[in-house]
Amino acid sequence: MSKHSSPVLIVGSVAFDSVKTPLGEVDNVLGGAAVYSATAATFFSPVQLVGVVGEDFPPEHFDFLRSRGVDLEGLQIQPGQTFRWKGYYDFDVNQAHSLETHLNVFERFRPTLPDAYRDAKYVFLANIDPELQLEVLAQVRDPHLTLCDTMNFWIERKRDALLEVLRRVDIAFMNDAEVRELCGTFSLIKAARQVMSYGPRTVIIKKGEHGAVMFTADSHFSAPSYPLEAVKDPTGAGDTFEGGFIGYLAHTEQVTEANMRKAVIYGSVLASFTVEDFSLDRMRRLTMAEIQERYREFRRIAFFEAA
Amino acid sequence: MSKHSSPVLIVGSVAFDSVKTPLGEVDNVLGGAAVYSATAATFFSPVQLVGVVGEDFPPEHFDFLRSRGVDLEGLQIQPGQTFRWKGYYDFDVNQAHSLETHLNVFERFRPTLPDAYRDAKYVFLANIDPELQLEVLAQVRDPHLTLCDTMNFWIERKRDALLEVLRRVDIAFMNDAEVRELCGTFSLIKAARQVMSYGPRTVIIKKGEHGAVMFTADSHFSAPSYPLEAVKDPTGAGDTFEGGFIGYLAHTEQVTEANMRKAVIYGSVLASFTVEDFSLDRMRRLTMAEIQERYREFRRIAFFEAA
Repeated sequence: MSKHSSPVLIVGSVAFDSVKTPLGEVDNVLGGAAVYSATAATFFSPVQLVGVVGEDFPPEHFDFLRSRGVDLEGLQIQPGQTFRWKGYYDFDVNQAHSLETHLNVFERFRPTLPDAYRDAKYVFLANIDPELQLEVLAQVRDPHLTLCDTMNFWIERKRDALLEVLRRVDIAFMNDAEVRELCGTFSLIKAARQVMSYGPRTVIIKKGEHGAVMFTADSHFSAPSYPLEAVKDPTGAGDTFEGGFIGYLAHTEQVTEANMRKAVIYGSVLASFTVEDFSLDRMRRLTMAEIQERYREFRRIAFFEAA
Repeated sequence: MSKHSSPVLIVGSVAFDSVKTPLGEVDNVLGGAAVYSATAATFFSPVQLVGVVGEDFPPEHFDFLRSRGVDLEGLQIQPGQTFRWKGYYDFDVNQAHSLETHLNVFERFRPTLPDAYRDAKYVFLANIDPELQLEVLAQVRDPHLTLCDTMNFWIERKRDALLEVLRRVDIAFMNDAEVRELCGTFSLIKAARQVMSYGPRTVIIKKGEHGAVMFTADSHFSAPSYPLEAVKDPTGAGDTFEGGFIGYLAHTEQVTEANMRKAVIYGSVLASFTVEDFSLDRMRRLTMAEIQERYREFRRIAFFEAA
């Protein structure tokens, strides 16, 4: 499916995660926003990855990403340890509890785009320091579509830089708690309009088990969530959603309302698979046939007849 | 639309509400689960109302209900005061905070169905004491479809009677917090399956601003919520949803999956109007043309193309 698609440039974290959930526990597994979103995007488009790892990053992870069609020229290897995150989830899988965050090589990371990346048309600024997101944007020559994600940490600590990012991107992703915090309002509709007033013409709010909603100036789209009996590990669900979204959209090469809606569903489909197992394990064995079958299931879940 | 429809039998509270929200405040206005759901149902079907009011219940409220096509033969007038509820909502409109609950005439209420009601085919047991719900069920001869709602108060205090109600009804409505509490699980899918194991073949979970989901043994339907910038008063939203659902379904006289999905959307449409104003004020001036236009809007909100 990805043969003739535009590559997607993704910048974000590459990490080792240690995660405990009610259904199990893993230590130092492959993770990070850029890894989840890049892997998801590769189901539809090739990816150019910008990030940093330490000298402890093992060959099998490089091999996995390359095997998925991820260009690693922009992935720096720096002296020291790879970024590490440790956390747990209770039964409310929408709520991650962080136990440890070791930035390690991320602390001094400055993104430098290989020349081939500067012509990227689809650019996804996954969740990192908004100042780094701005540095990446500054190095891209003439992007067709730019997207960003963020998190409460940056909303609280780097609000001005984040607002500058929002001024410059076409689509902003946030989860419901984040957009409420950023905008100081409980209403997601008011919050979405406020974010649009900062710059993005599209705002996509991730609501975890409640699906996602996409707002533009004159349209509103509500995507259902997939009814999973057991969420094994919610880590990376949002990143996967975003990667699937931008990967699919780059594949279509036409940023229309209809394609964005399909992209939201493909993102939701991929996220619904990711949470079925720890780390990227479910995506490693996921097939396009499974993706298409679940897409059709989403259609059945959301369908109702005309009045 | 309601000319040839089956009447819907509704039992539940008739009340005076005093409500404060971030957008205003009202005192002693018409309310109660049976009133909201009956009024909503009358957009599609006639209603037979079972409940109780005190001698303070004013003629204009009887007149309003009669003008809507609500049969009041089953509405008892007892010495004393009508049920009163006082509460408020903060910005999280999903969360009602009760300040005062005066059962008044409801304290000694025993439902007695007029003979004409005993042949009711569509029976909605709105939120009241499950023992009273059972008394109503016992008086109905051969219902075609029975539905119930409940609340945390009964889940905590009358669990056995509630489980007996669930054993006997076809469709159970609950909001997300209630079904989680009843089943002791966070997962709405697991909770829905557990409720189905008690009896109902269909479980409909109301999620407030996140819409509603309907579960059967072999299908899952997710209805979007309507993006309202301002919810003036969420009181009665769930009751309106349920009344619209059963009213529409009785109107179709065919309990199929397709009609139940349409009924969920009509219920959602009516609820989205109810919260636009205090008490039943929005439903008082609501037209069928407005309902159909918003139904079409729900279709646009939920639509995405095939893969």
